[in-house]
Amino acid sequence: MLSNRTNRQIKVKSRPVGKPKESDFELVDAPLPEIGNGQFLARTLWISVDPYMVGRLRAEANYVQGVGPGDVMCCFSVAQIVESQHPGFRPGEMVHGYFGMSEYVALRGDAAEQISKIDPALAPPQAYLGILGLTGLTAYFGLLDLGTPKAGETVVVSAGAGAVGSAVGRIAKIKGCRAVAIVGSDEKCRHAVEDLGFDAAVNYKSATPLTEQLRAACPKGIDVYFDNTGGPISDALLPLYNTFARIVICGRIAIAHLTDTNQDIGLRDHSVILVKRLRKFGLIVFDYADRYPEGIRTLAQWMRDGLMPYREDVLDGIANAPRAFIRLLDGANIGKQLVRVADPE
Amino acid sequence: MLSNRTNRQIKVKSRPVGKPKESDFELVDAPLPEIGNGQFLARTLWISVDPYMVGRLRAEANYVQGVGPGDVMCCFSVAQIVESQHPGFRPGEMVHGYFGMSEYVALRGDAAEQISKIDPALAPPQAYLGILGLTGLTAYFGLLDLGTPKAGETVVVSAGAGAVGSAVGRIAKIKGCRAVAIVGSDEKCRHAVEDLGFDAAVNYKSATPLTEQLRAACPKGIDVYFDNTGGPISDALLPLYNTFARIVICGRIAIAHLTDTNQDIGLRDHSVILVKRLRKFGLIVFDYADRYPEGIRTLAQWMRDGLMPYREDVLDGIANAPRAFIRLLDGANIGKQLVRVADPE
Repeated sequence: MLSNRTNRQIKVKSRPVGKPKESDFELVDAPLPEIGNGQFLARTLWISVDPYMVGRLRAEANYVQGVGPGDVMCCFSVAQIVESQHPGFRPGEMVHGYFGMSEYVALRGDAAEQISKIDPALAPPQAYLGILGLTGLTAYFGLLDLGTPKAGETVVVSAGAGAVGSAVGRIAKIKGCRAVAIVGSDEKCRHAVEDLGFDAAVNYKSATPLTEQLRAACPKGIDVYFDNTGGPISDALLPLYNTFARIVICGRIAIAHLTDTNQDIGLRDHSVILVKRLRKFGLIVFDYADRYPEGIRTLAQWMRDGLMPYREDVLDGIANAPRAFIRLLDGANIGKQLVRVADPE
Repeated sequence: MLSNRTNRQIKVKSRPVGKPKESDFELVDAPLPEIGNGQFLARTLWISVDPYMVGRLRAEANYVQGVGPGDVMCCFSVAQIVESQHPGFRPGEMVHGYFGMSEYVALRGDAAEQISKIDPALAPPQAYLGILGLTGLTAYFGLLDLGTPKAGETVVVSAGAGAVGSAVGRIAKIKGCRAVAIVGSDEKCRHAVEDLGFDAAVNYKSATPLTEQLRAACPKGIDVYFDNTGGPISDALLPLYNTFARIVICGRIAIAHLTDTNQDIGLRDHSVILVKRLRKFGLIVFDYADRYPEGIRTLAQWMRDGLMPYREDVLDGIANAPRAFIRLLDGANIGKQLVRVADPE
């Protein structure tokens, strides 16, 4: 019965030159994977597109293995098991992992698949791609472990209306901080303050220089910067840091188009780091893998307490996955960017 | 008798435009200071010139009060008490502090003078301007507290033949690390390896790109960078960091000539910080003031054990203090740059 079904996939067509574009990907029909002993077949329900994917598409060495032309494009997704020859995974159960952009996936439950079962009774399955997934965990460990905000301090987050950014804002408020978002439109400014609970939001595309806007939005200076962008946006904060402020480098969406030959040239932060005794940390959430249960437990409690509302931005159908990815890179999404591939059975 | 003596001082003549030069300072004859009740008069023996002075001469806000035209130029020095109306300070005793470039100084023993008595029996008085002073303490706390080197790791230090840099190299060796110096001449390379005990040294002025030289000198990558320079020298390390490496920002001698209008433009480190999960810290030794006794005790022990040999570069006479300062900025000194003002009595 299943063998009559299509199994569409998104493959990398060419390595992006500069910023990725839809035409770097292609939709292909693949045979339905066959499973052997110890394997199971799962149907993708939801796909998450995230900024880290830009790095995976680069030719240069990175912190994990990348993807190149001819490969199924990588992604985290939630899938439902439809057939199983693995005693630990039963049809109907839902799993989260690094399965790639394919309507059906054959899995073995090994480490490379980064598999975990999810409980759809606790939250809708796609929440495990957001607040209860790497998005929420990135905000949780990055802000609390590296940013170490104290009540009364000011926390600024770039891409503040995005998935990680809005979670950072929520957690900053939970910890008693002033939360300020940097976003890319006046509409997102309103959304950040009215829906996401930020104390203030500034539009880096406005005619008013970003430093001036931030100076007004942060009357007591900046104590923590959760940096999802890099580039000129991050330069704008340099005059505003308080002594002993912390900078958490989480993403580079503003410089994602740069390559080895088109380098990231701009204002070095050396002098400010020295004079203000700043501390600057690189954050990769995978380093906290052994503490995920702590993070999920705390975030789920905050969700149940109504402290972590969040918004989804959904495109339908696997064919739209490249568009969803570019939408994210363009900053066109409001809330967590997802692709709905199929409904659970 | 003392009143017949001259009291020459170095004053700031004009605020430096770009890199400081000798003509920004002037030698003046001042009256011998008179002391009142609770004060004492001290004769300067040794003056220390240090990179931090560049920052003090800037108009912009800094982490401590600066100096401007008409002010006696700031410095740390060692002085011997010649007259006293203060019960706690007796003629003949030696003191170290932030006294300024003056042959005689009237002191009150308050916090601004950052005064401490020194024991010339433990080490020559000028050692308190070097290994047992802020130089050694900067290396000690910066490397051990922020750089946190582990045995077997590779520590690179820029301005490695300088006062702080050579102390960093010694401490790195004491901790079982590979120590690599970045210096500005082939002569300093030889000095760093043959006299200062570095495992390797590279000349950033050589025709071979600095990154290539460092790749050869650091076959296991770089785990700690003690950065005394900033600028293109520091950019050259970016491809060579190991995961979880630490960068200690201690000085900015390579970018000391930059101003608010002539900014520090170069390679941003955002992507490397993220991908390699680097940690970057600003270091001001004054933040460790309450731990100085621990540092001095440990450094003095290492000196007695013969583990901390160091070299001095001495000019004679207070009139040469501006020249000594420029010499330091030009990287012309080998070893701790000092000015001998008078001999003890």
